[in-house]
Amino acid sequence: MFSPAIDELLAALRCLPGVGPKTAQRMAMHLLQRDTTGAARLVQALQQALDTVTHCPLCRNLTESQPCRICQDSQRDGGLLCIVESPMDVLAVEQSGSYRGRYFVLMGHLSPMDGIGPEDLGIPALLARVAAGGLHEVILATNPTVEGEATAHYLADRLRAQGVTVTRPAQGMPSGGELEFLDGHTLLQAFRSRRQVE
Amino acid sequence: MFSPAIDELLAALRCLPGVGPKTAQRMAMHLLQRDTTGAARLVQALQQALDTVTHCPLCRNLTESQPCRICQDSQRDGGLLCIVESPMDVLAVEQSGSYRGRYFVLMGHLSPMDGIGPEDLGIPALLARVAAGGLHEVILATNPTVEGEATAHYLADRLRAQGVTVTRPAQGMPSGGELEFLDGHTLLQAFRSRRQVE
Repeated sequence: MFSPAIDELLAALRCLPGVGPKTAQRMAMHLLQRDTTGAARLVQALQQALDTVTHCPLCRNLTESQPCRICQDSQRDGGLLCIVESPMDVLAVEQSGSYRGRYFVLMGHLSPMDGIGPEDLGIPALLARVAAGGLHEVILATNPTVEGEATAHYLADRLRAQGVTVTRPAQGMPSGGELEFLDGHTLLQAFRSRRQVE
Repeated sequence: MFSPAIDELLAALRCLPGVGPKTAQRMAMHLLQRDTTGAARLVQALQQALDTVTHCPLCRNLTESQPCRICQDSQRDGGLLCIVESPMDVLAVEQSGSYRGRYFVLMGHLSPMDGIGPEDLGIPALLARVAAGGLHEVILATNPTVEGEATAHYLADRLRAQGVTVTRPAQGMPSGGELEFLDGHTLLQAFRSRRQVE
């Protein structure tokens, strides 16, 4: 409906998650009409990221340095390994300020229906790393979803067999949440894991 | 928190309208992890659009051809001009299939508070075009908002002085809307403009 260049931009913007036809139109008009500086910056940044960003050979996180900054950081506790599903989970844990160990990023979860098995998640490399020794605890911080739980369960079985301590973050009521809006499963976990008030 | 290239990509994505930190993270991970082909296409399409898209010298719409395809189309009624606020409005009118004339795109509305006057909207060029003759009707299809109405009112005064017929699309109940959810002003307009059922 627009000119070929704008039509192609609209189609290309729709590769972004959550962007439908109307949002693509609003984004295209904004980029071409109001913020060509921002648009040029986006072209530059995206090309740069495509050219340089790969996976860290140690933790599989996205990075352009080999290994990534967290794996390089000698201030961190190398005996502690936190396993998460995605780079955004690393960011969330880092921002919580609760953790100073290293990470292993699965880049997904086990999903036999989609043909995603242990090899796709780098689990053989993870087990080899644990087998090499030097770790005193592995924290399974996969999502508290059906798939995340199944992945954690699978990993726990294999990691415990190697004699390392395996933990999982507590499940319960989220801070700032309201009891009446919590789902039944969350409340069930919270009540099951209730603790005596000191 | 991520590597410099990813941090810059996150910042650049936030120039998109409606994209906050969390959405930028989701988009960046999607582009770098799941859809590098789509990411490369987006780089290419956005650069191409930035390089080629400008304003049509006749209607001010965004286009890379001079004049744009609609202004070039000899099948259209050159005596009919529809004035809209944005390129997306042109698209909406085109998709309704209700109009076969030409357009003039203001690229905004009058907004003295933001320093946007008639010159910024190309109104002198519009008046010169109408004064040149050949138009039998001008349709003021600015938005039914306070600013759009004010802009339509301003234009109507000046266009009528030139002896051309000036119209505005009807206001009333939108198709598929439910009466109970319509705002009072829409209902007021709909009742005022009620028509006898034939």
